[in-house]
Amino acid sequence: MERLNGHLDVNEKTGRKDLVTNIDKDNEKFFVKQLRALEPGSKVLGEEGLGDKIDSLDGQVWIVDPIDGTMNFVKQRDHFAMMIAYYVDGVPTLGFIYDVINDKLYHGGPDIGIYVNSESMNPPANNSLEDGLIGMSGPLIIRDVHHMQEIAEASSGYRIYGSAGIEIATAISGKTIGYISHLRPWDIAAGRVLAETLGMTVSTIDGKPIDMLSSNTVLLATKKAQKDILKISTKR
Amino acid sequence: MERLNGHLDVNEKTGRKDLVTNIDKDNEKFFVKQLRALEPGSKVLGEEGLGDKIDSLDGQVWIVDPIDGTMNFVKQRDHFAMMIAYYVDGVPTLGFIYDVINDKLYHGGPDIGIYVNSESMNPPANNSLEDGLIGMSGPLIIRDVHHMQEIAEASSGYRIYGSAGIEIATAISGKTIGYISHLRPWDIAAGRVLAETLGMTVSTIDGKPIDMLSSNTVLLATKKAQKDILKISTKR
Repeated sequence: MERLNGHLDVNEKTGRKDLVTNIDKDNEKFFVKQLRALEPGSKVLGEEGLGDKIDSLDGQVWIVDPIDGTMNFVKQRDHFAMMIAYYVDGVPTLGFIYDVINDKLYHGGPDIGIYVNSESMNPPANNSLEDGLIGMSGPLIIRDVHHMQEIAEASSGYRIYGSAGIEIATAISGKTIGYISHLRPWDIAAGRVLAETLGMTVSTIDGKPIDMLSSNTVLLATKKAQKDILKISTKR
Repeated sequence: MERLNGHLDVNEKTGRKDLVTNIDKDNEKFFVKQLRALEPGSKVLGEEGLGDKIDSLDGQVWIVDPIDGTMNFVKQRDHFAMMIAYYVDGVPTLGFIYDVINDKLYHGGPDIGIYVNSESMNPPANNSLEDGLIGMSGPLIIRDVHHMQEIAEASSGYRIYGSAGIEIATAISGKTIGYISHLRPWDIAAGRVLAETLGMTVSTIDGKPIDMLSSNTVLLATKKAQKDILKISTKR
């Protein structure tokens, strides 16, 4: 927050819509150092590549997104998140999504429950696709991947917030019935822990388990909405 | 806020995606009564039809949206607004957009300047389409009206928040370079006052003046982004 109105060094990664700033990198350096100290022997997989090279989830692995929604961060100074996940031998164990501007930390795991700041979160209502709003990725809608437009039309409406962390925080709060986007490990690792612990489902858009070391088109949804969406997304 | 967690009577208007609640109606009744008392002789055009029948903007006219983003209100209890505009002989004079959950009142007009709560707002940077995020309407994107998908692709990214009031508050705050949606008078009346006073443009998607007594596909944008968008939206 102190650095929010200061100068940003903004650089493109794979193109003009894929940005990284000096603060993404500084945050990741900070997290890598702190997490290694917190849990000696653990490894850190970070979006900006400043942690460890990870080719398996054996042992204790932290997965870090130092700023999720960097485009929002750069253009809005709003609607972005910081995310950390902790997996032990591949088992989703702890997740943290910090909505920085609203000062809301969504955190917890299967052994301790899920909290927003110090308040316990209840599982969201198991609403159907038709009965809920759904968060989506802009490019998937335009390219109409996996009948994304039909899924949007079947819902009560689709929303695009531009940050996986903010979208997943919205879904686990029951404000949307789910979220669909093409995500890398650090985009979904923390949200998966929180969502599954709260009784939501996390799978690929065709209903398979996600590969935590690769990219996936992820469907995070209530159990009912997942069924409704798979009926559409897996049509020929 | 007091009634936010109470029971809602939800009814469909033109279809399952066009909702009205008892609170929309109660709010509008309240506004109609208070505004008539504030300015005797004035007329009130309200979304729910509980004010006056208006077929011209002669005289003093209030234009009221008691809850903008009713779907968000019903499904999220978040991301909705209350809006009031004051037009005198057709001249945009005062606008009020209240982002209820964030307790932010955007208000003012050409004679007094624009404020968020008690803080004066500066005109947003005159950024181009390419350099900014843009707010859009979900249905316009899916139907690809006026090359909406090409406009989205040309921007830094598109966002869908699901409430004209929230979208316009975001644009005048400089967090998006504009907003495109099919809007009725009460969706745009207040936002037009605020945006124009802050040096932004408000027109139809093909660059014509909007008709304040009818529906328009509205383009609200920085001057630069308007030019960029019209080049795409008016292509054959």
